[in-house]
Amino acid sequence: MLSSTLRTPVPRLARPLLARQYSSSAPTIGFIGLGQMGYNMATHLCTKSQSPFVDTVAKFQDENANATAASSPADLADKASVIVTVLPESAHVRSVYLGNNGVRDGLRKNTLCIDSSTIDTSVSIDVSRQLIGLGARAVDAPISGGIMGAKAGTLTFMVGSENAQDYDAAKVYLERMGKNVVRCGDLGAGQAAKICNNLLLAISMVGTAEALNLGVRLGLDPSVLAGIINTSSGRCWSSDTSNPVPDVLPNAPSTNGYNGGFKSKLMLKDLGLVANAAKDSKTPLMLGGLVESIYRHLSNQGDMAEKDFSVVYKWLAESQK
Amino acid sequence: MLSSTLRTPVPRLARPLLARQYSSSAPTIGFIGLGQMGYNMATHLCTKSQSPFVDTVAKFQDENANATAASSPADLADKASVIVTVLPESAHVRSVYLGNNGVRDGLRKNTLCIDSSTIDTSVSIDVSRQLIGLGARAVDAPISGGIMGAKAGTLTFMVGSENAQDYDAAKVYLERMGKNVVRCGDLGAGQAAKICNNLLLAISMVGTAEALNLGVRLGLDPSVLAGIINTSSGRCWSSDTSNPVPDVLPNAPSTNGYNGGFKSKLMLKDLGLVANAAKDSKTPLMLGGLVESIYRHLSNQGDMAEKDFSVVYKWLAESQK
Amino acid sequence: MLSSTLRTPVPRLARPLLARQYSSSAPTIGFIGLGQMGYNMATHLCTKSQSPFVDTVAKFQDENANATAASSPADLADKASVIVTVLPESAHVRSVYLGNNGVRDGLRKNTLCIDSSTIDTSVSIDVSRQLIGLGARAVDAPISGGIMGAKAGTLTFMVGSENAQDYDAAKVYLERMGKNVVRCGDLGAGQAAKICNNLLLAISMVGTAEALNLGVRLGLDPSVLAGIINTSSGRCWSSDTSNPVPDVLPNAPSTNGYNGGFKSKLMLKDLGLVANAAKDSKTPLMLGGLVESIYRHLSNQGDMAEKDFSVVYKWLAESQK
Amino acid sequence: MLSSTLRTPVPRLARPLLARQYSSSAPTIGFIGLGQMGYNMATHLCTKSQSPFVDTVAKFQDENANATAASSPADLADKASVIVTVLPESAHVRSVYLGNNGVRDGLRKNTLCIDSSTIDTSVSIDVSRQLIGLGARAVDAPISGGIMGAKAGTLTFMVGSENAQDYDAAKVYLERMGKNVVRCGDLGAGQAAKICNNLLLAISMVGTAEALNLGVRLGLDPSVLAGIINTSSGRCWSSDTSNPVPDVLPNAPSTNGYNGGFKSKLMLKDLGLVANAAKDSKTPLMLGGLVESIYRHLSNQGDMAEKDFSVVYKWLAESQK
Repeated sequence: MLSSTLRTPVPRLARPLLARQYSSSAPTIGFIGLGQMGYNMATHLCTKSQSPFVDTVAKFQDENANATAASSPADLADKASVIVTVLPESAHVRSVYLGNNGVRDGLRKNTLCIDSSTIDTSVSIDVSRQLIGLGARAVDAPISGGIMGAKAGTLTFMVGSENAQDYDAAKVYLERMGKNVVRCGDLGAGQAAKICNNLLLAISMVGTAEALNLGVRLGLDPSVLAGIINTSSGRCWSSDTSNPVPDVLPNAPSTNGYNGGFKSKLMLKDLGLVANAAKDSKTPLMLGGLVESIYRHLSNQGDMAEKDFSVVYKWLAESQK
Repeated sequence: MLSSTLRTPVPRLARPLLARQYSSSAPTIGFIGLGQMGYNMATHLCTKSQSPFVDTVAKFQDENANATAASSPADLADKASVIVTVLPESAHVRSVYLGNNGVRDGLRKNTLCIDSSTIDTSVSIDVSRQLIGLGARAVDAPISGGIMGAKAGTLTFMVGSENAQDYDAAKVYLERMGKNVVRCGDLGAGQAAKICNNLLLAISMVGTAEALNLGVRLGLDPSVLAGIINTSSGRCWSSDTSNPVPDVLPNAPSTNGYNGGFKSKLMLKDLGLVANAAKDSKTPLMLGGLVESIYRHLSNQGDMAEKDFSVVYKWLAESQK
Repeated sequence: MLSSTLRTPVPRLARPLLARQYSSSAPTIGFIGLGQMGYNMATHLCTKSQSPFVDTVAKFQDENANATAASSPADLADKASVIVTVLPESAHVRSVYLGNNGVRDGLRKNTLCIDSSTIDTSVSIDVSRQLIGLGARAVDAPISGGIMGAKAGTLTFMVGSENAQDYDAAKVYLERMGKNVVRCGDLGAGQAAKICNNLLLAISMVGTAEALNLGVRLGLDPSVLAGIINTSSGRCWSSDTSNPVPDVLPNAPSTNGYNGGFKSKLMLKDLGLVANAAKDSKTPLMLGGLVESIYRHLSNQGDMAEKDFSVVYKWLAESQK
Repeated sequence: MLSSTLRTPVPRLARPLLARQYSSSAPTIGFIGLGQMGYNMATHLCTKSQSPFVDTVAKFQDENANATAASSPADLADKASVIVTVLPESAHVRSVYLGNNGVRDGLRKNTLCIDSSTIDTSVSIDVSRQLIGLGARAVDAPISGGIMGAKAGTLTFMVGSENAQDYDAAKVYLERMGKNVVRCGDLGAGQAAKICNNLLLAISMVGTAEALNLGVRLGLDPSVLAGIINTSSGRCWSSDTSNPVPDVLPNAPSTNGYNGGFKSKLMLKDLGLVANAAKDSKTPLMLGGLVESIYRHLSNQGDMAEKDFSVVYKWLAESQK
């Protein structure tokens, strides 16, 4: 059903029929931020929901029969009772929700606002509280899983909410876009969990690159060494699932010229969120600060910013001349 | 059989009987380095081998019927055709094998020398080559698994050898002391694999401590956060098997006052071997250098040197006043 | 004159007489931010200027005959043609100038706004540009020299301005509060120069602490070693002027229990500004990131946050148990 | 006198005449290690001493009338009562003094051994103690000042000695090769002072590079910023004497394509000595470890290992694409 919808846009005259399928109680869903991630997520949500859907991208409306246009976040908020946003940075989230002609200007009572952007924990909490103060419900639900997961509908959502009811309400919609939804705690907890995981991910990846590079320099076969590490105390996702040394794992980005995967510039962005959260909470980071420095440095080298973040192995090893 | 042997020493007069059981071709095994690790390993090897065994510790001879005394490494080498050593540092390995009254002075042709110490890769290679030059066979086989593994006989051995035959020959004996024996490559490869794994282990542990400490400071429940990380891209042994936050895992050293496990001072020793190998091979380490600095710093704080290396969480978090 | 003024407040009736001394063309000076730094600076500026002075602190008005009260930044801006501000953080500068009842609301054409706060370069530039857009003149002029320098009137001002005229206009007033005024470049250049100096200062101080601690651990007399360094290529302000080892220099904060001087928490604040500027400009920092981590860590240890930043020596050396 | 000697080798027949000038009491000086540094030092020492001189380089003997050949360190020790050595690494010092046919084999009672190599503090102490045990006198006297200083005879010597008499005895000869001789303490203290200074030097240089690079990225003129730093608390040798940004200082290596000066590979060698000393003394280094990592990394980039160590600015800034 989904795939056919995607292949051949439903003719416009078919719409009334589809519309009739909606149960009278079907909520209208609004979606803002149809970028690479968002477009795939919105497609899952729209087709699986079979309820009125509002967004701001004509192409999406052409491809999804039950999707209609909103002229602005305010207009969208006026039409929808559930709003999902997937935006690049803190400033976008603030302006889409609270700026001129933003969601706030059209917000209805009890509307459920689900922000799946990865942004500053402090900004996420602030925006959610303001929306709640205006009579809406708000949760933060950042994503893990990347574009592949968005296409496959297998994303993980880390959710922060004021209470269990808001979490349960959001879960219904998040499960249409992913397969793993977990409540992390109060407002902002989703953001906090996301950046803590990515902090450890970045450290593990650089550490894996250092350990394998040392092994190679000492004459070990990287596949043999990885095999040992993966059954020992050094094992981690960066070694057993996305190994940074080309040809150790056939499907790892490193084997594909460090293409696909999670771009260094995006990891650097998340490490910036980590730095802000650490500063706000007066939390000392040692490796975290250095890893940010390393990704800052390599992101200025050639095209490394656009490569999967496992390219740090190349940054380390290519220097061996 | 093992346990009863340990409980009630076999009376001396029982020895001749036992001795008769040996097949005429049974090689005599020599063992040097009966410390906490070595004693347990030697007990497994001695009892499972049921062949003549030579060592230098009276207590061991009292507890193991087929064990007899050697007066020195040279005397032991004169009696044994298989020699296993488990020693603390490079200098000990060099002197036990090549020093005055060392193994070299009693070495027989084709004796198989298995060094299970964790020492400098360059020293390990040098000593092995000299033994081979003298007509013996030599492999490096450092251990992973700790004292618990030594007692249970579940150690992992990472083996470096000149050829497959020497590896196969050593495997027979190593399997009596552990359950996982893997060939890593040529001479020194066992040492190299061991320190590469421990480098990544140290980095992962400090990274896990930083990520969980940040999460706690941001208001997350460490068990909830660990649960998320363990099913996400941040997962690693340090998070899912030996979590550094007390009470996240019931059996982790952190939950037991950071007792048991792998002492910080031993991790610091291994990181020193990493630093030497990196210097010799001109390999840049970024996180590796910093992690060594951190363990150097905390090893001078109170009793942290004697605690499991996951105590780095305490070093980070206790500062939060 | 200054000192007597400070000792015995001029009776209120004396004011008209003093007032008559003003040349008709004497500009009215407004001052906002009479904290430890600001109060001393304002006293120099007020007494040396002998022109109408406006501020918001009654005590200051009691102690300075030509000082009168302003009810708000807007009221002050309405009365003054030169405004000097010394505020703690970016948010304060933004709200004092551009917030409700802020300077903007009373601003006169061509008023010269001199902000001597140390804040984010990007915020400084933004606020200055907005003030200029409103018809005023604005320069950033952060301070080096500390409270001692503020009392003695020996401060250094690092100035960023749109053009030389604005710099020259500000210089007249800055020279009444300090003895060294230097133009660093365009708007924000003063802030940039200040944080670049303090970045290097922090790195040099931690480096000096590491080098001297290593020397002491190797058996050297810290005074002998400092003497050698101070005539060699390692010499720096942190070694020859504010040595972190107690008793090497009689007047260094370290010799006075790390009291006086520049508090660790203030250095940490400046390193946060460095981190923001580095992120905004995509500039990799290696030592800079680690030094921030170190000051974050020690600022959570006992009372180190309140001690001179040379206390990092204690943080390193006290661990030597 | 020196220069003419260098320009036109003294004809052999001149030797007897020169020889006659020697006071009967003139000690014979032996010199081992006539590399780039040593050759220039030996030339000063030989010509200024006007006493019998023994070495192992024919070219030197051709150029210096009173220099005669020694066939080995042992032969040289047999002829000389003062021995100066300038060797690359710990292993060379150990073998030249204590190896086969080494100094030890020809050593005379009370011979003064002056080792001006920069090597491991622990090795330096060990070799000196063994020589003293054999009846000789020994001091460590590593050098600061580089090849330029060796040619000009303006070197600084950092001396470690058992007592003041040995220091005074060595000073006589060191002053003929340099202009600044300072006693740092007991045996090994010269080595310790040298590496502590170079540790701080390396940290200051990388810190200066980071601070100036940040300033440039923020739009500052590096010369203006350097001028401010050099009169502020950030001032250090790396900023005011060997600034790493090209064209800030006309005579700095950076302005000459990072040629001349102190090669990165030599700084990396000294940082390796620092790491060994820190490990032996259980001293935590934070910036020191990271700076070694940075020089390890850049030393593998193109020809940076051969460039002045201020090239770290290029390593940082060139990445800004």
